[in-house]
Amino acid sequence: MTLVLSNEEIGHLISMGEVIDRLDVTYHDLGNGEAQNRPRSDIYGPFRDNARYIFKTMDGMAPRFEAAAIRLNSDTIRWNVTPAGIRKDKQPTGPGGKWIGLILLFSMRTGEPLAIIPDGMIQSMRVAATNALGAKYMAPEYISTYALLGAGQQAAAQARAMLHVRPSIKEIRVFSPTPATREKLAAELAAEFGIKVIAAESAEKAVRGADLVGCATNSITPVVQLEWLEPHAHVTCVKELELGPGILGRSSLVAVHTRLDRPANYIVGEGENPIYDHDPAQGLPEEVARTRITRPENEVDLTRQIDIGELAVGRFQKPPHSSMTTFVNTIGMGLQFAAIGSLVWEKATAQGIGRDIPTDWFLEDMHP
Amino acid sequence: MTLVLSNEEIGHLISMGEVIDRLDVTYHDLGNGEAQNRPRSDIYGPFRDNARYIFKTMDGMAPRFEAAAIRLNSDTIRWNVTPAGIRKDKQPTGPGGKWIGLILLFSMRTGEPLAIIPDGMIQSMRVAATNALGAKYMAPEYISTYALLGAGQQAAAQARAMLHVRPSIKEIRVFSPTPATREKLAAELAAEFGIKVIAAESAEKAVRGADLVGCATNSITPVVQLEWLEPHAHVTCVKELELGPGILGRSSLVAVHTRLDRPANYIVGEGENPIYDHDPAQGLPEEVARTRITRPENEVDLTRQIDIGELAVGRFQKPPHSSMTTFVNTIGMGLQFAAIGSLVWEKATAQGIGRDIPTDWFLEDMHP
Repeated sequence: MTLVLSNEEIGHLISMGEVIDRLDVTYHDLGNGEAQNRPRSDIYGPFRDNARYIFKTMDGMAPRFEAAAIRLNSDTIRWNVTPAGIRKDKQPTGPGGKWIGLILLFSMRTGEPLAIIPDGMIQSMRVAATNALGAKYMAPEYISTYALLGAGQQAAAQARAMLHVRPSIKEIRVFSPTPATREKLAAELAAEFGIKVIAAESAEKAVRGADLVGCATNSITPVVQLEWLEPHAHVTCVKELELGPGILGRSSLVAVHTRLDRPANYIVGEGENPIYDHDPAQGLPEEVARTRITRPENEVDLTRQIDIGELAVGRFQKPPHSSMTTFVNTIGMGLQFAAIGSLVWEKATAQGIGRDIPTDWFLEDMHP
Repeated sequence: MTLVLSNEEIGHLISMGEVIDRLDVTYHDLGNGEAQNRPRSDIYGPFRDNARYIFKTMDGMAPRFEAAAIRLNSDTIRWNVTPAGIRKDKQPTGPGGKWIGLILLFSMRTGEPLAIIPDGMIQSMRVAATNALGAKYMAPEYISTYALLGAGQQAAAQARAMLHVRPSIKEIRVFSPTPATREKLAAELAAEFGIKVIAAESAEKAVRGADLVGCATNSITPVVQLEWLEPHAHVTCVKELELGPGILGRSSLVAVHTRLDRPANYIVGEGENPIYDHDPAQGLPEEVARTRITRPENEVDLTRQIDIGELAVGRFQKPPHSSMTTFVNTIGMGLQFAAIGSLVWEKATAQGIGRDIPTDWFLEDMHP
């Protein structure tokens, strides 16, 4: 039987701690050359009404778990002009106003499709789990103060993940621009972990004095500045654009999720070769294009830093004690979905959760 | 509803002529920059018992049909040593001794998954249809004699496809090493098309004097030699290795299916970057590796020839009248599966054929 699950079921099946542990051994395998990825690619359809249909895929193979997976997204992205600049929104174009993101999990032993599951819950957990593993390997062992910039779903996931790898954290300072939002998350985290959680009035107030600084925002401009940081701080982010000038350059160690840090874009009308520096605002009307976001020049070349696999197996020069370190969670890897997808499948199968499709529907007796 | 079909159902739904016509307009779109591909990639698992698990994917987008697709194969390949050399066999490792090759079709309008169907029938038809389109654009318009090298399922498909684009063919000469096999196909084709079909005693006898020479074999050594060919012959093949020395060099026009003619191989243990010249026998025991097949040096660089899209829109120098031309069907494109998959879906939906899965099982209300 090929298993189908919902995001809600997946959320009940796996804990953040299990996801972190699963990715930890998987990144060890990656660092040891015992796991593999096919990096993300995006095909961009024609530009219509400020929007493009985008078909995104990434593949991964986790031999330890006898699992291969593809994660795919079938979305229309619309570029909306807002007072704050251009906002890129994934449209819920599916029937009933839903999104389409799927993970297909295959057995490396039999080749058969084991599961077809949505990507939302795993997506949210794997980003936080990966930042937490960066902190596990790079942050000082005993830290007590954690500044969390952002108060959305991803920020909440980051807090849960960081507390798993650094249970020594005694204080969290949450900042996001809307007071009600930061106060709500602060209250939630305080109740969940029984530690001091402050809703900070500014990013600077949250960051000053913190041992660990985590950015988990949708911002495409810096949310943290170098001069606010402690000399021993570990900084972690969900995208490079969140970091102020000089942070990467001043860090004694910068690690990335993957050095292949940009998707290969195949754009209708742009020929057969992939484009790695695709301006997402391409095709926008002129008045919109003028305000478009451009990626800043890096002071540090992310494609030459150590990656999460090397971090996991310790293949790097340990930074000097009490020096600043930074982890940049570059783009996702299919391997994450093979690792976590197979965990979900194992647990769902053991517990009898989910809906079944006859696997025979997906097999063929004709040589492909 | 998301549609599921079998190869048999697909075979009844679409004709070779429809597949050729569908690919023809799709290749026009490709040539005009109105369709797009993400080229094939293969992830190779660890080498065990002369075999590797391989996860192969390719994506394509056909805006004319509002369709995006991924085609994937989840296979174990075994390298067997035979008296004739190394034979690469896809193992039917799935439950019931079956293979796993799937096409997932998505709507570019709603993003939803329209169909999940096996790849076998479409795979077999699209190879033949593509060679036929090469002949449509490159072969002399009025040809009467067709040499067909090979007598398997693909050879039969090639004959059907060629007769669709060149109904002027009055004689087919079939050669394959086993007399019974070539005689069987010759009898079948004669009955099907009511034309003269000869089972030739040698490849040379089949080829001498032929206007059109089609190779559709599993051979990894040449099956046709330059000196057998007429000066005006159009030569077509399912892989470059079938062509004798000098054929590409002597052709006044060489066209390829895609210039991106080798898959990107991501091999466990070989780092994060793709390998384009992966020796498939890599990892074989020494006695086997010694007899391994190496790809010959090209006299003509296939990555610099015109491709099927340029052929379809006429963006090439017409070859001199009565000069030799060659079409090399390099690796597959995801675009083929988007084009033919959407044709299959349209026809199956109109006729009420197939099994349904609730599409809602594959949608999510959580932002991915």
